[in-house]
Amino acid sequence: MIVDNPWFRWEGDRLVLLDQTLLPGATEMVTLRTMADTIDAISRLVVRGAPAIGAAGGYGVVLGMMEGLPTDLERARERIAEIGAAVGSARPTAVNLSVAVDEVVAAARSATTVEQMVPRAVEAADRHVEADRAACDAIGEAGATLLAGTSRFLTHCNAGRLATTGAGTALAVLYALHAARHPIEVLASETRPLLQGSRITAWELAEAGIPVRVIPDGAGASVLLDGHVDAVIVGADRIARNGDTANKIGTLAHAIAAREAGVPFYVAAPATTFDPDSPTGADIEIELRSPAELSSAGRVTIADPALPAWNPAFDVTPERFITAFITDRGIVHPPFAETIPGRVYDR
Amino acid sequence: MIVDNPWFRWEGDRLVLLDQTLLPGATEMVTLRTMADTIDAISRLVVRGAPAIGAAGGYGVVLGMMEGLPTDLERARERIAEIGAAVGSARPTAVNLSVAVDEVVAAARSATTVEQMVPRAVEAADRHVEADRAACDAIGEAGATLLAGTSRFLTHCNAGRLATTGAGTALAVLYALHAARHPIEVLASETRPLLQGSRITAWELAEAGIPVRVIPDGAGASVLLDGHVDAVIVGADRIARNGDTANKIGTLAHAIAAREAGVPFYVAAPATTFDPDSPTGADIEIELRSPAELSSAGRVTIADPALPAWNPAFDVTPERFITAFITDRGIVHPPFAETIPGRVYDR
Repeated sequence: MIVDNPWFRWEGDRLVLLDQTLLPGATEMVTLRTMADTIDAISRLVVRGAPAIGAAGGYGVVLGMMEGLPTDLERARERIAEIGAAVGSARPTAVNLSVAVDEVVAAARSATTVEQMVPRAVEAADRHVEADRAACDAIGEAGATLLAGTSRFLTHCNAGRLATTGAGTALAVLYALHAARHPIEVLASETRPLLQGSRITAWELAEAGIPVRVIPDGAGASVLLDGHVDAVIVGADRIARNGDTANKIGTLAHAIAAREAGVPFYVAAPATTFDPDSPTGADIEIELRSPAELSSAGRVTIADPALPAWNPAFDVTPERFITAFITDRGIVHPPFAETIPGRVYDR
Repeated sequence: MIVDNPWFRWEGDRLVLLDQTLLPGATEMVTLRTMADTIDAISRLVVRGAPAIGAAGGYGVVLGMMEGLPTDLERARERIAEIGAAVGSARPTAVNLSVAVDEVVAAARSATTVEQMVPRAVEAADRHVEADRAACDAIGEAGATLLAGTSRFLTHCNAGRLATTGAGTALAVLYALHAARHPIEVLASETRPLLQGSRITAWELAEAGIPVRVIPDGAGASVLLDGHVDAVIVGADRIARNGDTANKIGTLAHAIAAREAGVPFYVAAPATTFDPDSPTGADIEIELRSPAELSSAGRVTIADPALPAWNPAFDVTPERFITAFITDRGIVHPPFAETIPGRVYDR
């Protein structure tokens, strides 16, 4: 394991995780005891990052089932499907949530007695976490092999320990390079409006001893064109069959500028983030969040809350801007429409 | 005059202007009575926007002279040069500051008695403001003719009434279109770290009755590539002989994305923003501001203040991304290395 991740723990009848909305001012754990707690935590970004959302969603289904199931087997199966639908719709863009929820729902519904349903669901949710942690390590190793010798990175949002249950995706590569004593340094764009870059990525990289500097999101283009970056590396929330990639708003601007600057642009993600059912980026639903996020920072008003705002949480980077995907199944090179189905999934 | 601008007034022995750091929570005027007041106001962005900085700098020289001049003519001229150097270095990137300061210093130094020096300086500072206001109106008219029929604009930072002493530069064009009853709507990127877009542009456009929505800086690329913008229009802090343009950090990302999307990208600026002494963008000094701006919003801490940050206040958009300049001397089309010297200045 590249890094230990103490921020995500299942404790038998509750999910204990770091409240990421309070970082970096406070590192407080929050305990989720119900399905409603879990949906609220996902919606408010107490837990965020596509793989971590998926893992939390799996246990959210478990918690919903623990709140009570009908004693009749068929009606219990129906109830589990309803729980899965409720948890699965907490946020729309990250495909990992529906993948994890579907795994747990299917495992629970396959039980032949109602009594077996919760244990089956817990096993499935645990397996999902184990697979996520293993995927993080595999991404880190694949990326560190690919990028040995690359030293100056730009990343956006947070694709690290707090976006997964393991070492992260994009940041797993950086942790692996650092662990292998490659000298690296990182520019982290702050990622408005919720500041996952300055609050979370900068915090976790600094904790790990990796040199990091925060830049405004708008500075990405100039640091790229001025030659201060050797590679851009980001995570993903959903990757279409053709390679179009939904990730945090602001990713696309970095990708376009990177191509203009001749700097490679890498997306690091586990196989669970690749969605065989989205043919292209146009098929990915982009979550629109509250305008209030733009008139505030943390809990503070920074602009007139009455002003209208347009606040898409994600953008879609067309596949032509992506140099390669770094996955737990190895490096995936273009042409992605051929290589993704062959390498990442088998349909 | 396209719009009245009550936010910048010279009152004979003091400069009264809006404290833009308090917007939009409070609209408070601040009174500058000394050169040191003026330098502080420019440095802290109490007054900002290249043309407004220039105008304030002109009166800053006047205030410095009013604080006392040697009675000997030659020594008074030396003192005025020192005052000009002090005021002119309050911020490095906007060329308008040194232009205005040089005008006022030259007028004062040309006086043949010490008694005439302050009146000459005041006249020169007043003339600079009158010229700035006339330039704003001329930019507005030229731009409105060019862009009649264009309806959906993206702008960045603030190039409006509060960036000039008149109707603005980029926003003068929008005011002129609005006054001519062309239906327009505006996306304003918020412009981290100091939020001139959400705090100032959105505020002044809404006050004028022009529909405006704030977007995160990182959303510029996606609104452009998704077809939501017909034209990008921004101001400038310094324009090199070849057309390379220094403007607020984040401008370059919009320019690159606009070209990728096939959307025209316009820079609106008075002739005073064109610097004949900067051959290319590489010759423009880019101000680096405090890392603390990135760990705060307004007066509030939003990220760990101990984390290192890299906070360039401006970027340089290479001329190849610029469709045309909208100036008080008409529209300037490529090839800029030929058209700028011929059209905007005569050397």
